[in-house]
Amino acid sequence: MSASGLYVALVHHPVLNRRGEEVAAALTNLDLHDLARAAKTFGVAAVYVVTPIEDQLELAGAIVAHWREGAGGRSNPLRREAMELLRLKESLGDAVEEVAGLEGETPLVVATAARPRVPVVAVEEVRHALASKRPVLLVFGTAWGLSQPLIEGADMVLEPIRGQGSYNHLSVRQAAAIYFDRLFGR
Amino acid sequence: MSASGLYVALVHHPVLNRRGEEVAAALTNLDLHDLARAAKTFGVAAVYVVTPIEDQLELAGAIVAHWREGAGGRSNPLRREAMELLRLKESLGDAVEEVAGLEGETPLVVATAARPRVPVVAVEEVRHALASKRPVLLVFGTAWGLSQPLIEGADMVLEPIRGQGSYNHLSVRQAAAIYFDRLFGR
Repeated sequence: MSASGLYVALVHHPVLNRRGEEVAAALTNLDLHDLARAAKTFGVAAVYVVTPIEDQLELAGAIVAHWREGAGGRSNPLRREAMELLRLKESLGDAVEEVAGLEGETPLVVATAARPRVPVVAVEEVRHALASKRPVLLVFGTAWGLSQPLIEGADMVLEPIRGQGSYNHLSVRQAAAIYFDRLFGR
Repeated sequence: MSASGLYVALVHHPVLNRRGEEVAAALTNLDLHDLARAAKTFGVAAVYVVTPIEDQLELAGAIVAHWREGAGGRSNPLRREAMELLRLKESLGDAVEEVAGLEGETPLVVATAARPRVPVVAVEEVRHALASKRPVLLVFGTAWGLSQPLIEGADMVLEPIRGQGSYNHLSVRQAAAIYFDRLFGR
């Protein structure tokens, strides 16, 4: 098992647009950088960038190659270390399968949502699973969040991040960083 | 006093480049969005975007106007609510002065750094100051962080965010979100 047992998926399809319709969201370069940097900082084993769109996978591949083998990584080796955690997959199922193969056990799939319409669990549940050596795949949706079937298909849904009032419109970059800190921050 | 008493400054000068030289960093559009969204979520009173470069102030002004009065805000009112927290200033001193005027008391200036070379305080110190109605200005540096004189000139420096090892290269967007959550997250 990897050190932390925690894997992350950043899903670009199926996600919702602002009208609640299922769409494929475009890649955001800074999402990849920020997820990778936070993952490296908090000891996440890998970050799966999930999109079924062929040219988006090509774009993601070019970004990753620039940092893993190209000029980016040579000029900024610290960024390379982070970007090496990125993996590209066509579907969440492919990511689950890869984690299962690496860990020898199907991961607990934990969805995140700003406004889940299903029961949620506290972050301690995820920490407990990891402590008992169950691998975990923590799933984030881009755009306006994961589609409802994907949320309902997860093993559990993590409690949303609440601030001081009813407004909770964090970027996925920030939500991921906060969850990592809640799980692993000293 | 505002509800939280917490103000934030995102400083673009004087900050360090990767060789440790003092520079003025360019604005990053997503920094403004992410800081504003996290500030709105966690009840921060205002976010000061600090740069002495005239065309950068103009650019920041155009971004803010697009969301406060322009097409952006009309198509996405939730984003407008967040972007309304942004204020533009030429220097950190100008931000301190404005907070002092708004609150009737000079704010406690709290710097953040990934690798501070000065004594640091825990987040509880900041929470304690806010609880005793002292306004606080929490200062973040873009690029490779705040310049050393700025760190030494602050009233206190907040403990860095540590993950699982020695790697802590979070984006400023993520570091800010984590500190807000540590201060105010339920």
